[in-house]
Amino acid sequence: MAGYMHAKQDHQRRLRRVEGQVRGLQRMVEEDNYCIDVLTQVSAATSALKAFALSLLEEHLAHCVAEATLKGGPEADAKIKEASDAIARLVRS
Amino acid sequence: MAGYMHAKQDHQRRLRRVEGQVRGLQRMVEEDNYCIDVLTQVSAATSALKAFALSLLEEHLAHCVAEATLKGGPEADAKIKEASDAIARLVRS
Amino acid sequence: MAGYMHAKQDHQRRLRRVEGQVRGLQRMVEEDNYCIDVLTQVSAATSALKAFALSLLEEHLAHCVAEATLKGGPEADAKIKEASDAIARLVRS
Amino acid sequence: MAGYMHAKQDHQRRLRRVEGQVRGLQRMVEEDNYCIDVLTQVSAATSALKAFALSLLEEHLAHCVAEATLKGGPEADAKIKEASDAIARLVRS
Repeated sequence: MAGYMHAKQDHQRRLRRVEGQVRGLQRMVEEDNYCIDVLTQVSAATSALKAFALSLLEEHLAHCVAEATLKGGPEADAKIKEASDAIARLVRS
Repeated sequence: MAGYMHAKQDHQRRLRRVEGQVRGLQRMVEEDNYCIDVLTQVSAATSALKAFALSLLEEHLAHCVAEATLKGGPEADAKIKEASDAIARLVRS
Repeated sequence: MAGYMHAKQDHQRRLRRVEGQVRGLQRMVEEDNYCIDVLTQVSAATSALKAFALSLLEEHLAHCVAEATLKGGPEADAKIKEASDAIARLVRS
Repeated sequence: MAGYMHAKQDHQRRLRRVEGQVRGLQRMVEEDNYCIDVLTQVSAATSALKAFALSLLEEHLAHCVAEATLKGGPEADAKIKEASDAIARLVRS
């Protein structure tokens, strides 16, 4: 449970940083910053979002998917399929 | 100039939507939403950020890079190299 | 076991198609095809490679990771970590 | 012209290496190598394909697009649009 709270705080911390990056982008566009500098900041925000997703996914595999696997049956297969589909969306986004 | 103002407003509109998506993610984490739903929302925000970057890049090629090309010389080469590096960062982010 | 053989044949079929796409790229470069057409073919080959990876990963989660989860202990955690790292490499490649 | 021949040889060298990686993948699948090792090799091949695409794209911007820009008119706009669309496909592949 302590580990879970820690993960949740870590997720919120990452997301607040992404929000700050997106607000920074709005300021840069408002102040007519040079395109290339704006693009560099977009790449940083995209990488931060992906790092958040990967951290969430690892947690999901370690908890929800592992739990379903222990129960077995069609629900376990469905969880694997669901996780694989989410990974596919992430790889292609 | 009118086209330029239109582009700037379009950029701000896109970025405000991404900010809304990132705030939505914070709410989802706060309310312990299901991981897979959070991951779907992350993919949507990542795609929106990339669409913004691609729109900005097209504008940059059509204006800054084209202008440098007309002047020619080493500055034109430097602009092409700079744009290519930004594309590489985007492709890998 | 029959399912396993089927998956293996499916993987080989996908990889032979990617090999054909890469040979096609060599022919296009040799014959000085238009850059944009070459780039379109690169995107197709990259997508095909990622589809192969996603199919392999789903299989890995359904078999190797699920098996380790049933045994439990540090080996199960190690398998989850290993799969997550592979997903991260894929997302960033 | 010498620079052009050099670029063409460089492209072919990169593509032959990707072909070797894809053949290596077929051998790994045939010999039932461990999934994670296969996935690592897929990420390497994907990165190599993207590096080839980025090199080709830089050349395209420096030659075809720059040439069209110097001529100006609707053809220049069309070239920028075409290059931007190819970049978008690459970013999303």
